[in-house]
Amino acid sequence: MQYPEPIAKLIDSYMRLPGIGSKTATRLAFYTIDMDKADVEAFSKSLMAAKTELHYCTICGNITDEDPCEICRDKGRDQKTILVVEQPKDVMSIDRTNEYHGLYHVLHGVLSPIEGRGPEDLNIQSLIKRLQANDAVQEVIVATNATPEGEATAQYLARLIHPAQIKVTRLAHGLAVGSDIEYADEMTLLKAVEGRTEM
Amino acid sequence: MQYPEPIAKLIDSYMRLPGIGSKTATRLAFYTIDMDKADVEAFSKSLMAAKTELHYCTICGNITDEDPCEICRDKGRDQKTILVVEQPKDVMSIDRTNEYHGLYHVLHGVLSPIEGRGPEDLNIQSLIKRLQANDAVQEVIVATNATPEGEATAQYLARLIHPAQIKVTRLAHGLAVGSDIEYADEMTLLKAVEGRTEM
Repeated sequence: MQYPEPIAKLIDSYMRLPGIGSKTATRLAFYTIDMDKADVEAFSKSLMAAKTELHYCTICGNITDEDPCEICRDKGRDQKTILVVEQPKDVMSIDRTNEYHGLYHVLHGVLSPIEGRGPEDLNIQSLIKRLQANDAVQEVIVATNATPEGEATAQYLARLIHPAQIKVTRLAHGLAVGSDIEYADEMTLLKAVEGRTEM
Repeated sequence: MQYPEPIAKLIDSYMRLPGIGSKTATRLAFYTIDMDKADVEAFSKSLMAAKTELHYCTICGNITDEDPCEICRDKGRDQKTILVVEQPKDVMSIDRTNEYHGLYHVLHGVLSPIEGRGPEDLNIQSLIKRLQANDAVQEVIVATNATPEGEATAQYLARLIHPAQIKVTRLAHGLAVGSDIEYADEMTLLKAVEGRTEM
């Protein structure tokens, strides 16, 4: 026998999500059938809403339901600093620290020759335009991930921005707070020693 | 800042699924935004369809989009045997083996005094009615899980059905195929020895 078509389709939909295989998808599908109808309706609507009501901020590239986004509209934020991240969700991660109050710019990826992604595939051109159009910016903090591609992208941006006499900085590398030296990898330890601070 | 409302709602919906915490829900929500619109629409529709088009077969309790379900309608199946499972998804697991060709009955749970679930909360009454209405049934195979609750439910069903002179059997316990004795727990080994077969 086959699953009734509505279940088969739902399992198929769940399987399109990352990290969800056929067993998990089946479990989720059967769970869905037992959920409150109101919750399933809300889920169904929120999927469509996320797809139709959201777009990218034309200034910073962050995901937003209004344009420009909340952060770009907020004149109370420090207009002298732009923090560059790979993905929209990184904006929220950094903003949650409550330590940074400047602006953001979302690249939507990193340079990756292997995957054939060059500068023109990233949201870099609009960052340069932003810097040219706005004399206020004094510092660009490059917060790409601490991966080889993230590093290469940071280097590329630094070379691109330096001629404009704008300071380019990079997030610190080192031991994660609460982590054991014993379990840190060599590169992290090397960076932690290099970047040691006086007490 | 907060996530734009459409993302926040979608994250909230994903978090209602079992085994999905806030980090995974956020990842899935951002993934959804980048999905093809057609795929998201299909997902959204399949959620509602699973909730509105599916119901339980009035004969066996399995999930179906028609009533009676495909298996109960199929006169080509062995009408002498009913295999009792806890959940609708167990029907598919067993049917996939292509070894069993009889009928099914879905209990929708197991007896659990701790969770306050007694016989009247399970789909047991309809099983008894099925057996009374149909003289053809010669064997009931109890395929509840090999958990204490599953065992207790199996015992309960056996006592209930025995007076009707119908054979009640239980799935074999033993080593999983391909598993190491080294890693098998004591109860499983005990059952494997008890249930040994002649070669």
